[in-house]
Amino acid sequence: MSDPLSTWKEGAAKDAIIGHVEQTCADGSPGWVPVQERVAVFDNDGTLWCEKPMPIQLDFVLRRLAEMAELDPSLRVRQPWKAAHERDYAWLAQVMAEHYAGDDTNVKTLGAGVVAAFANITVDEFEADSDAFLRSTRHPTLGRGYLECAYAPMVELLAYLRANGFVNYIASGGGRDFMRPISDEVYGIPREGVIGSAVALAYTPDENGGAITRQAAADYLDDGAEKPVHIWARTGRRPVLAAGNSNGDIEMLDFTHHRDRPSLRLLVLHDDAEREFDYVAGAERALERAASRGWTLVSVKDDWATVF
Amino acid sequence: MSDPLSTWKEGAAKDAIIGHVEQTCADGSPGWVPVQERVAVFDNDGTLWCEKPMPIQLDFVLRRLAEMAELDPSLRVRQPWKAAHERDYAWLAQVMAEHYAGDDTNVKTLGAGVVAAFANITVDEFEADSDAFLRSTRHPTLGRGYLECAYAPMVELLAYLRANGFVNYIASGGGRDFMRPISDEVYGIPREGVIGSAVALAYTPDENGGAITRQAAADYLDDGAEKPVHIWARTGRRPVLAAGNSNGDIEMLDFTHHRDRPSLRLLVLHDDAEREFDYVAGAERALERAASRGWTLVSVKDDWATVF
Repeated sequence: MSDPLSTWKEGAAKDAIIGHVEQTCADGSPGWVPVQERVAVFDNDGTLWCEKPMPIQLDFVLRRLAEMAELDPSLRVRQPWKAAHERDYAWLAQVMAEHYAGDDTNVKTLGAGVVAAFANITVDEFEADSDAFLRSTRHPTLGRGYLECAYAPMVELLAYLRANGFVNYIASGGGRDFMRPISDEVYGIPREGVIGSAVALAYTPDENGGAITRQAAADYLDDGAEKPVHIWARTGRRPVLAAGNSNGDIEMLDFTHHRDRPSLRLLVLHDDAEREFDYVAGAERALERAASRGWTLVSVKDDWATVF
Repeated sequence: MSDPLSTWKEGAAKDAIIGHVEQTCADGSPGWVPVQERVAVFDNDGTLWCEKPMPIQLDFVLRRLAEMAELDPSLRVRQPWKAAHERDYAWLAQVMAEHYAGDDTNVKTLGAGVVAAFANITVDEFEADSDAFLRSTRHPTLGRGYLECAYAPMVELLAYLRANGFVNYIASGGGRDFMRPISDEVYGIPREGVIGSAVALAYTPDENGGAITRQAAADYLDDGAEKPVHIWARTGRRPVLAAGNSNGDIEMLDFTHHRDRPSLRLLVLHDDAEREFDYVAGAERALERAASRGWTLVSVKDDWATVF
């Protein structure tokens, strides 16, 4: 038999995955899970594709904010347009650090800019923009296009799960409608499998089917305790497998627990400065939780034979 | 070849359905739709199962409100507990009539009661309640259990679509979590295919996976212009087939239109007092729209060989 996880090195993480899938799928075993209940959920940024030096969607948003500031000088003194215009990545890094430390004051400022950056356009226009960006933009340091920034071992894991009857969902803090145009091509996850943050939408009818338009307000941020809520809202199920990498994934990983059947919780540890990045900022509490709750740590350095 | 719609009488509606499915699935034809884009959306109350003398979920809610008023006399003077306690169906009929006429004052009163009736219980407890209700309760006049109130021709249509690669969704004004326990059994639509109104939910962690709890507030009412929005949010697609029966379905049916491919819009007309019910209240604007936009009318009396 061929190795279903050939991009994974032999070790505890690979064993845990194969062990979980085998007992989940072994009809008659005590760990067997009916096929329709084999729901697996994945964070995206830092779990399925890389998120350094900044989340891919943040690059997309900053370019748009910079364009807006280029056209309207009055925006250049207001955050987040100011940071985008001045390429002030330190301000942005600070916002993310504050967020993971529990202070969302500046996240709200950034969020208001993000929401305004793509307000009053249709979901089709937004999709064309994000699709074009993702296909045409290169990662700033890795020497590859953004669409090639998905982790090969995770893509192989998704395929392995799918082959065993699992349905994979992306439960990302990133924007649902940003990921949808490429999710099937990159991950084999169709549009309807993408759960993520969303802006408020409104339907405007016309003679030709009408349009759905993005509003200048968030609907919800799919992070932290919102992840289990939106996984439930979308699927109506408690997953049997979850993978994340940061503090924002703790509740999703906690939720992926059953009293009467096995579950697998994976936490990706970025510890490979040579092939990808080496950081724990934003993952400190998740790493503690992994140790105390018995989650399976996935070391980029030690568990992945290849990263991309 | 066997008739895929044997519960439908020969006629324009049956012809329109079969014609639409055949051209949608004919690879190489100008009307061909790739299988992953064959999304069909269905209203539930009055479209997939009956909604008279009152929507099935309203019966469920009223029994709960009456129980609450039984335990707490102070509720008996407040709507909607008063109406539930006194079995004052005239008040409820009036609320529905006002809603369809565009006045939602009393709908808000009713909604607040509905939301309060099942607040602060987990989604699992709510599901056990609705499941037990649906399996144990009989329709007040039709002489059958509620689970047998689904329309056989619509159930056959769902199966016919599924056999042709369509994915069916329930886009109902009714509660998502009310329908989910029975949607697969009754309609062959799995839990993740149920779109519907929702209350706000919150996740509370604990050592055993935590719980998702219903809050005392609506998240959204999946009716009117919210239907296209939530169909998009869930599926990321514009449907190629939609079926409804009331004014609340107009936007969903409008949205189901493509400039470059065929779409089918079905509007169920309740005109059979003998086998089901005969009413147009709440569907007046939808019926006008059907005439002016070329939607396909489905007459219970003339198009269905059997109703249940």
